[in-house]
Amino acid sequence: MAEHQNQPIAALATAWGSSAIAVIRTSGPGSIELIDRLFEPPGRLATAGGNTVHHGILLEPRTRAQLDEVLVSIFRAPRSYTGEDAAEIMCHGSTAGVERILAALFAAGFRQAEPGEFTMRAFLAGKLDLTRAEAVREIVGARTAESHAMALQRLSGALEERINAIKGRLVTLLAAVDIQLDYPEEESGEVVIAPEVVIEIRDSIRGLLASYRTGRIYQEGVRVAIAGPSNAGKSSLFNELLRQDRSIVSAIAGTTRDYIESPIAVAGVPVRLYDTAGFRESNEQIESEGMRRSREILDAAELVLYVVDATEGVAPHQREVIEALRDSGRLVGVWNKVDLPGAADAPAGFAAVSVATGGGLERLVEIIGERILPDSLAWTGEPVIDSLRQKQLLETAHQALGHVLEGLADQVPVDAVALDAEEALRALGEITGEVTTADVLDAMFSGFCVGK
Amino acid sequence: MAEHQNQPIAALATAWGSSAIAVIRTSGPGSIELIDRLFEPPGRLATAGGNTVHHGILLEPRTRAQLDEVLVSIFRAPRSYTGEDAAEIMCHGSTAGVERILAALFAAGFRQAEPGEFTMRAFLAGKLDLTRAEAVREIVGARTAESHAMALQRLSGALEERINAIKGRLVTLLAAVDIQLDYPEEESGEVVIAPEVVIEIRDSIRGLLASYRTGRIYQEGVRVAIAGPSNAGKSSLFNELLRQDRSIVSAIAGTTRDYIESPIAVAGVPVRLYDTAGFRESNEQIESEGMRRSREILDAAELVLYVVDATEGVAPHQREVIEALRDSGRLVGVWNKVDLPGAADAPAGFAAVSVATGGGLERLVEIIGERILPDSLAWTGEPVIDSLRQKQLLETAHQALGHVLEGLADQVPVDAVALDAEEALRALGEITGEVTTADVLDAMFSGFCVGK
Repeated sequence: MAEHQNQPIAALATAWGSSAIAVIRTSGPGSIELIDRLFEPPGRLATAGGNTVHHGILLEPRTRAQLDEVLVSIFRAPRSYTGEDAAEIMCHGSTAGVERILAALFAAGFRQAEPGEFTMRAFLAGKLDLTRAEAVREIVGARTAESHAMALQRLSGALEERINAIKGRLVTLLAAVDIQLDYPEEESGEVVIAPEVVIEIRDSIRGLLASYRTGRIYQEGVRVAIAGPSNAGKSSLFNELLRQDRSIVSAIAGTTRDYIESPIAVAGVPVRLYDTAGFRESNEQIESEGMRRSREILDAAELVLYVVDATEGVAPHQREVIEALRDSGRLVGVWNKVDLPGAADAPAGFAAVSVATGGGLERLVEIIGERILPDSLAWTGEPVIDSLRQKQLLETAHQALGHVLEGLADQVPVDAVALDAEEALRALGEITGEVTTADVLDAMFSGFCVGK
Repeated sequence: MAEHQNQPIAALATAWGSSAIAVIRTSGPGSIELIDRLFEPPGRLATAGGNTVHHGILLEPRTRAQLDEVLVSIFRAPRSYTGEDAAEIMCHGSTAGVERILAALFAAGFRQAEPGEFTMRAFLAGKLDLTRAEAVREIVGARTAESHAMALQRLSGALEERINAIKGRLVTLLAAVDIQLDYPEEESGEVVIAPEVVIEIRDSIRGLLASYRTGRIYQEGVRVAIAGPSNAGKSSLFNELLRQDRSIVSAIAGTTRDYIESPIAVAGVPVRLYDTAGFRESNEQIESEGMRRSREILDAAELVLYVVDATEGVAPHQREVIEALRDSGRLVGVWNKVDLPGAADAPAGFAAVSVATGGGLERLVEIIGERILPDSLAWTGEPVIDSLRQKQLLETAHQALGHVLEGLADQVPVDAVALDAEEALRALGEITGEVTTADVLDAMFSGFCVGK
């Protein structure tokens, strides 16, 4: 990625598909002049000031055929996302039109931006540190309001500040060591590094490390499958849970997805809800494709809502399945149809509900929420990490500080101990991107979407 | 729709889904001030000039929590798409984030824009006529470069000009009638309306009417299904046709769709290509769901590529299927594996190909193109119509001019004949929206996507 850093790049930045409008993002020295040559009225963009919007016609570079009626926003270095001259083309949201415009831009001298390249250029220009660059990716992938707020907090620099505060304490500690090493005659004591300070710093790092599970669960979400015998009310429960989640996500996604899987949010956590009743049920000996897929989904689900008809009770052959789910810690029993005459009382571990009347459903959603997000994992508003890269670097720092403490306990010479403290400092610096390598950057930004 | 015309409206204008950025469009008197109250730094937007872009933070109206880091473009009436004050919010392309921002806007006083409402406001403000408003919708739905170019031509006013030219001729003709009716003594001749002029005008209208099939085929496209016995090479042909169509559309759509259906472009026409081999094949008596779907797709397809293994030839039980397809005019025979030893010569109506070597495929694509788009329907660059509304109004005008000609032949008094000519003029005026009703507008714009 790093080789062609100064070349003008272009990419579709909005989601692919027919829509009212689409935005094509460009950046790089000369990008505004290149687009100006394709723009009518001519000369308008090349002379435009930064942060201005211009209406006009985009032309094909060779044939000069009209490509679209567009709005072009002009940004002048350094006041742009990337810190470079940049232009954003807002065109009609036709897939064919976007293709035509991109082809024209590539013919005119732009190249296709690589995933995350805009944000990488912003990082290289010093516009944001690596924790904020990662937050850009995470914010795009956020599927609930909570995971969005969490990523936004990182984008606004809360995690960067936290890391910098920890780094600051380590720097102070190392500065004292340096002084003692430089002027040994001025100090009388042997140990200049106070173990309790190191322990405090290590605890801060451990606190951030502990937030990783919280970050992942809000970002990645969990799979919840609905299982149980025929006619127990699986599909009705599925539909009712979708209906209760009034977010636009479900509503829109539901129209384009197969009805057997739908995203909902429970306690702020993105949930993929599966209705295994959607699969073909078969009594044949040979395992059908549907049964195989159904079993795969049940095996992969973090939680299984096992629905039983309260007027029928648990049939003997179901006990085994229920026990297996309970043993794996994934069972949420749903004792449905409790409003009907002849309904038995719910056994232990089953929530009494009536999907038909809605009774008990609110409590069921609460139970699901408690199970997928125990109190220990719920977001408290403190900065959390959800990047594996950050977690591994924090672990390195944590381990290095452990070596510092061991060294102090073993009365290792202070200059040797300082090497471990410096290792911790280096790892923390890598989290924010203060020290980094081209390989690390390439690996990190390749996980971005194109246009970001 | 017409009741709340002045209320500020907001809608997501880019495609739904995770992406680098998303754009939320707003319009209406006071819209800029409403957003300013949610924007940091405060007061910046309210005092901003038109066509300027501003970087800042969007806040939740009650909690003042940060919603996103955004760019807001400001447009001042009348220099905006709708002719009203308007603001476009470019935010991170997170589905959860878009929901949060829309919720904040609605809480702040915006209401959800109805489908096409931005364009309807533009029409009501005199920014574009109805043929161009319809082109806005068509341009968004365009699936090939050709259909996009065709819609863009209408957007740039080519159809409006054509209609206006026809109207102009009718107005001239009616003006002459008026003069004769007002001053009968000044004219000696009986017939002031020359039939040959009416015939010319009617022919122009007929020409536009004839373009309707061309417009529809480029806009809606055709379904092409691949059928034939097992192992004849159906799936290989399907994959090869996808591979040959190098448009980004296919590449991207292919990653998210079931592989048995994929959009490609042939001769500029959008084609939905179906591989019926993707369905379960079954020898059982009972018709499987897959077989039923397979048959439905074959029945609905405008063209069927029937693939035969040239080393096997046509089996007796296939003859009936092939003849039925030939009789319905939908057969394109594909004589595959002609490179293998023992391959028989292709019979009449079959194209000899080798999917494995690529031989004959180019010619096959040509044949498909000729069949789905005969020369008589190919786009010549002249304005075409593809809206049923326009077609029906042109038919009304055409019919009314027929009555004019009948009246002239029957020597009906000229003032009665003029009524029919006025009817034609009214229909043409309705096409461009010169005369229209709220009902017509509501019906027309409800076919738009939200945010347009």
